[in-house]
Amino acid sequence: MTDLNLTARGYECSPWELRWRGMDVDALQRTESAFALSNGHIGLRGTLEEAEPRGLPGTYLNGFYEQHELPYAEGGYGYPEAGQTVVNVTDGKVIRLLVEDEPLDMRYGVASEHDRVLDFRTGTLRRTTEWSSPTGRRVRVTTERLVSFTQRAIAAIRYEVEPLDEDLQLVVQSDLLANEPVESDTHDPRVAAALDSPLVGEFCHAADYEAVLVHRTRVSGLRMAAAMDHHIEVDDGISTRIHAEDDLARLTVAVDVPKGGRLRITKYLAYGWSAQRSVPALRAQAEAALGGARKTGWDGLVEEQQQFLDDFWATSDIEIEGDPELQQAVRFALFHLLQAGARGESRAIPGKGLTGPGYDGHAFWDTETFVLPVLTYTTPDAARDALRWRHSTLDKARERATQLGLHGAAFPWRSINGAECSAYWPAGTAAFHVSADISDAVVRYLNATGDDDFERLHGAELLVETARMWASLGHFDRHGKFRIDGVTGPDEYSAVADNNIYTNLMARRNLLAAAEVCTRRPDLARELGADTTELDTWRAAADAMVVPYDRELGIHPQSEGFLEHDEWDYAATEPDFYPLLLNFPYFDLYRKQVVKQADLVLALHLCGDSFSPDEKARDFAYYEARTVRDSSLSAGTQAVIAAEVGHLDLAYDYLAEAALTDLHDVHNNVRNGLHMASLAGAWQGAVAGFGGLRDHGGQLSFAPRLPRQLGSLKFRLAFRGTRFQVEITHDEATYHVLEGEPLELVHHGERFTVTETPVKLPIPAIDPGPAPHQPLGRNPMRRTPDRVRQFATQQK
Amino acid sequence: MTDLNLTARGYECSPWELRWRGMDVDALQRTESAFALSNGHIGLRGTLEEAEPRGLPGTYLNGFYEQHELPYAEGGYGYPEAGQTVVNVTDGKVIRLLVEDEPLDMRYGVASEHDRVLDFRTGTLRRTTEWSSPTGRRVRVTTERLVSFTQRAIAAIRYEVEPLDEDLQLVVQSDLLANEPVESDTHDPRVAAALDSPLVGEFCHAADYEAVLVHRTRVSGLRMAAAMDHHIEVDDGISTRIHAEDDLARLTVAVDVPKGGRLRITKYLAYGWSAQRSVPALRAQAEAALGGARKTGWDGLVEEQQQFLDDFWATSDIEIEGDPELQQAVRFALFHLLQAGARGESRAIPGKGLTGPGYDGHAFWDTETFVLPVLTYTTPDAARDALRWRHSTLDKARERATQLGLHGAAFPWRSINGAECSAYWPAGTAAFHVSADISDAVVRYLNATGDDDFERLHGAELLVETARMWASLGHFDRHGKFRIDGVTGPDEYSAVADNNIYTNLMARRNLLAAAEVCTRRPDLARELGADTTELDTWRAAADAMVVPYDRELGIHPQSEGFLEHDEWDYAATEPDFYPLLLNFPYFDLYRKQVVKQADLVLALHLCGDSFSPDEKARDFAYYEARTVRDSSLSAGTQAVIAAEVGHLDLAYDYLAEAALTDLHDVHNNVRNGLHMASLAGAWQGAVAGFGGLRDHGGQLSFAPRLPRQLGSLKFRLAFRGTRFQVEITHDEATYHVLEGEPLELVHHGERFTVTETPVKLPIPAIDPGPAPHQPLGRNPMRRTPDRVRQFATQQK
Repeated sequence: MTDLNLTARGYECSPWELRWRGMDVDALQRTESAFALSNGHIGLRGTLEEAEPRGLPGTYLNGFYEQHELPYAEGGYGYPEAGQTVVNVTDGKVIRLLVEDEPLDMRYGVASEHDRVLDFRTGTLRRTTEWSSPTGRRVRVTTERLVSFTQRAIAAIRYEVEPLDEDLQLVVQSDLLANEPVESDTHDPRVAAALDSPLVGEFCHAADYEAVLVHRTRVSGLRMAAAMDHHIEVDDGISTRIHAEDDLARLTVAVDVPKGGRLRITKYLAYGWSAQRSVPALRAQAEAALGGARKTGWDGLVEEQQQFLDDFWATSDIEIEGDPELQQAVRFALFHLLQAGARGESRAIPGKGLTGPGYDGHAFWDTETFVLPVLTYTTPDAARDALRWRHSTLDKARERATQLGLHGAAFPWRSINGAECSAYWPAGTAAFHVSADISDAVVRYLNATGDDDFERLHGAELLVETARMWASLGHFDRHGKFRIDGVTGPDEYSAVADNNIYTNLMARRNLLAAAEVCTRRPDLARELGADTTELDTWRAAADAMVVPYDRELGIHPQSEGFLEHDEWDYAATEPDFYPLLLNFPYFDLYRKQVVKQADLVLALHLCGDSFSPDEKARDFAYYEARTVRDSSLSAGTQAVIAAEVGHLDLAYDYLAEAALTDLHDVHNNVRNGLHMASLAGAWQGAVAGFGGLRDHGGQLSFAPRLPRQLGSLKFRLAFRGTRFQVEITHDEATYHVLEGEPLELVHHGERFTVTETPVKLPIPAIDPGPAPHQPLGRNPMRRTPDRVRQFATQQK
Repeated sequence: MTDLNLTARGYECSPWELRWRGMDVDALQRTESAFALSNGHIGLRGTLEEAEPRGLPGTYLNGFYEQHELPYAEGGYGYPEAGQTVVNVTDGKVIRLLVEDEPLDMRYGVASEHDRVLDFRTGTLRRTTEWSSPTGRRVRVTTERLVSFTQRAIAAIRYEVEPLDEDLQLVVQSDLLANEPVESDTHDPRVAAALDSPLVGEFCHAADYEAVLVHRTRVSGLRMAAAMDHHIEVDDGISTRIHAEDDLARLTVAVDVPKGGRLRITKYLAYGWSAQRSVPALRAQAEAALGGARKTGWDGLVEEQQQFLDDFWATSDIEIEGDPELQQAVRFALFHLLQAGARGESRAIPGKGLTGPGYDGHAFWDTETFVLPVLTYTTPDAARDALRWRHSTLDKARERATQLGLHGAAFPWRSINGAECSAYWPAGTAAFHVSADISDAVVRYLNATGDDDFERLHGAELLVETARMWASLGHFDRHGKFRIDGVTGPDEYSAVADNNIYTNLMARRNLLAAAEVCTRRPDLARELGADTTELDTWRAAADAMVVPYDRELGIHPQSEGFLEHDEWDYAATEPDFYPLLLNFPYFDLYRKQVVKQADLVLALHLCGDSFSPDEKARDFAYYEARTVRDSSLSAGTQAVIAAEVGHLDLAYDYLAEAALTDLHDVHNNVRNGLHMASLAGAWQGAVAGFGGLRDHGGQLSFAPRLPRQLGSLKFRLAFRGTRFQVEITHDEATYHVLEGEPLELVHHGERFTVTETPVKLPIPAIDPGPAPHQPLGRNPMRRTPDRVRQFATQQK
């Protein structure tokens, strides 16, 4: 244990890695999520090589799902009939070890050392175990694992065993294992049935050290191939056997290893899937990828991985002085966001990335609103690819709009393949803001990159089709105002209300952005069939958009009528009644002034140019008192606005909560995967919160302010091909370009040009007035080193 | 065929009976519903004795249900987990005939005569069939069937066969048949499974001509017994055999009957069920009932039945001059309402009565709001019994309120045993008005009867517990107004809105009625724990109740925000897009000014004392233009208000639509059972519409007006032990007491006393202004004799 270890529950504190020392079977599930490796295409949970003990095995291929019927006791027109669930595919992580006929199992014998570490700079998961078998045979097992950022179809494992006290016979079994039994949290027998042996074996082959299995899903009919090959290094002669059947391919290596000797196996894994390609084609695809990886070799893969990450950190790193735990958490967050999006390549970024089966593997608005701003300013290609996925689902979104009686495209609330999978329409279909969130992400990406190709091929169409949806969803009332009635905003403790301000402001932006691109690019407008009449309609709707305001209270209602609703009785709500949705009916939550997650406050952030500073301060205080943060999507946004209105202590607490949500398992569900939006919230809290980053109207602006708890904050961003750095201390901020052309930026309202020569600008004082209060017992914990454990447990 | 036959689709027009001549296999399902016999305890659909061809076999015992899981793709706190479905119990209607080894089957051979008639005065279903077998053997089969109003557990069938041309060997099989295969409309495999052989045989016994079967339901664990006995009359010697097994008891009678001779079998059926009693106890109960019926004998049962109905018609009849079809339809309606409620005795009155499996056999607010006003003023004991059922479920309603975070009692949207079965809360749980509807029915019943026992034992508690619910459901806002937010009113094309006027006005009445009874009866208040503080709260909430009004439009919004919503595009809605809920998503219906059924207009009726005449006229015209009548609950109410505001032609059309809904199968679903609320709407349209009956504040008042299409309208009512009659012509109304004390009534705003001496009072003129219009294509059809068929088909 090091002096830096401030973290509770096992993780050691360290700036560039996440380490868990010792064996804790109960913590396996959540560490598997935190130790998951992914490149956005393949995801491997951090299970032990020997497969057991385990929390949840998990090997995922982005976009690969099984389909199941969605049951309704009372159905309705337009209810989605088919659900989609991410599938645990063929597991290639498994390498079992027998030491003189005794299987290595951490639940038996004695582990004198057991250490796992996720390295944010090498992009590998390493493990060192010194284990003594029940009969006293001691071995050291050292493994390192990667999912390659550079070779998208490839994962690899280096597996080493050393006898410590005597010569030992070792038998290693390296598997491809399909249809592993998985315990599921689902209460729905149809979902459970879909997940019970979802893969139908279609082909298996094994020869030498190499094997391949091809399967397809029973209902959705998707096909996948998994292949493995091995490189074996050992001092002495070995005996091997390879075998393949429908759901298992196994290489068995038996060898006598002398004390001081070592068995080293490098396992290369290749994955591929397709809805179209044949068995031979997919087999060939996996075997070809394997060939490439073999040629690169383990050392080559490791080197490429490190180079890729060096480049990432050079653009994206955030340095925090004065809070090592926060430093680690923010890098952990960035690392996992990169893993989720790096090589998705026109697949979705699911709410949990590829770290677990939570949310059935679905993607939500989380991607565009929380994750993509991070990727846009750090790894813009990944942001582009995620938006290409949305574009690839446009046909389904258009069909959905038609089914709902709307024009243009209505994107789904939750989906893997682009078809709506939400079975509860008030919190799904009615949350139309997802389409504006996508449009907002398109505008942000285009502005940050000037990517004309994307605008021409994807962006303009996304903007136009979503604008059409808004124009048909809203209507002009008898007073000429444009209303959007009966929709659900971000806050899931309200639903189906009129004129949700977040939705209306985002729809307005969507309409204006579509009109702007069509005006600027008449060729695209023609191609998309948008004539001047249609553009006029969009502009008219945007101009007349209703934004309700209560003059008496001086507050913006989240939606019309919200401020008239009854207050929630927080005093009568016991701590263990949270999250409220598990203990109170929707009807009661919906009709009261209780807010699950930032909604109006998210509008204050993303549409901050529509509010005056005074309005922001009043609105923030009002909603602070009514926001219970039962959602992991909230703390980051609250950090951003708390910082803007000057409540820096509060912003600091919220930033920490967002950053530590998964490391501290605040919502007690990390076992199902990490919360990508919350990880993104850590970046938001730092960069948009204390950095004050805004991009209203395409202008990058900053309004830095450092909380007293930190010594300095430094972050790097990419914008229009320029990489630049912002360093914030208590008195001033220093901007300089790392690489690329000078940029016009704004610092606390003043324009300036940033170049390679650092520009130092002073930070003006702010008097935020009295601190706002939260619902009783729902304030974020105040972190001090000795209260960290309290923070971690009280928030559950 | 008679001259009076104006009806389309097979029913002959006749004032006191419903007759269908000829055999029409396709129409069997709907005629089985119309010909159903029931006493409110036992229900027998009008299937042919020989069981096939058939539509839906159906034998129901009120309150006897099977339970099944309610599936949710996305569940939520407080969602009901168990559904209830009415069960087709052991069928005793079955009497099969073999004529010289050829089974009587109307699909084969030739029926030279086939005639079924439901007689509203004898309360029996008669059938005459002259049938020639495929080999030319002719018989006449005459049957008569009753479900006894006087012996609640008893049904009986008289079955006669006469050879017409020659001596014939006849074999008759008379069955008790359990677990008949039934086709179900359900798409839910769990419901289907619950209905597939729901009965588990527990006991069977047969001896002589008598047999008994005892079963219980698989999941809900309810137990039932069915018993039969026979009296056989024939000229010559017979051979009989009786047999019983788990799901079948059968008496077989073989006899040679000479030409001119006759075989007559009288079959007595007894039913009983219990959640508590043992097999021997239930068997004994059924056999005892059978013994009583045998002693009374067929002629005795028929005579008792007729006396019961004579008494009913003496209190309840409506005579309509000038429209024979309407005359028949209104009596048909009254007859079936009586059947639904007569002997329910602390069981619910389901939405379909006991005429079919529609709505899973559930009871809704239909009972209290539509059916009970009819029974209150015609058969008050039946109204009392239905309210006793609600009282018997108070514990479940209290539990539900607690689960929902409310005080008092929250009654279910749909149920058989009192537990909520609605799986879609926005249109179920959120429709809290059901509790006020029950309270309103209690107030009406108490006022109409002065039944102190009921008030003491049941009524006061129902009023107090529902008032408590309202006091906790609503809240005082910052301006001191009492709001009820996030609830669903009667209109099912809106949901979860704030301050639904119907709900608020009915809740106000509920609160005041509870305060009134507690003030008047301090003993009951003490018993119910209602102190003066609580009464003050109720009165304060009632006084401060929000009733939104739009001054600009001069219109009451159905709920807050309703008038700002977009209009539905009726011009673009094809006729076959109705009912809209099958072709448009809820989200779209909810956010537009489209009304499924009277909601604000129902408030104009039931809470008419809260609106001025001008407001009623304006509101009615406004909502007429937006009401599509996709519900069978609407036409009767629209008739009432159309009549009140003077649009008598329109009222006449709506009355006819309500009265003929089932006879013309307007909603194309009569096969699943008759619509009790629509049948009640026929009475409402006549008595509250053209009679102008209101009971605001306990004062019976009338405002009669006759439409030009009718010569006169006469109806009878019971009130505080007095039976009286109102006869309306175009110029005047004549009131007189038939039996009992004089009454203080109101005629067009003027008080008068009605005695046995007829009082003639003039009818003032009214100028209603221009007729309101309906959504395009949704006006009620104008009936003329030669357009009746059009009416019947275009409304589907």
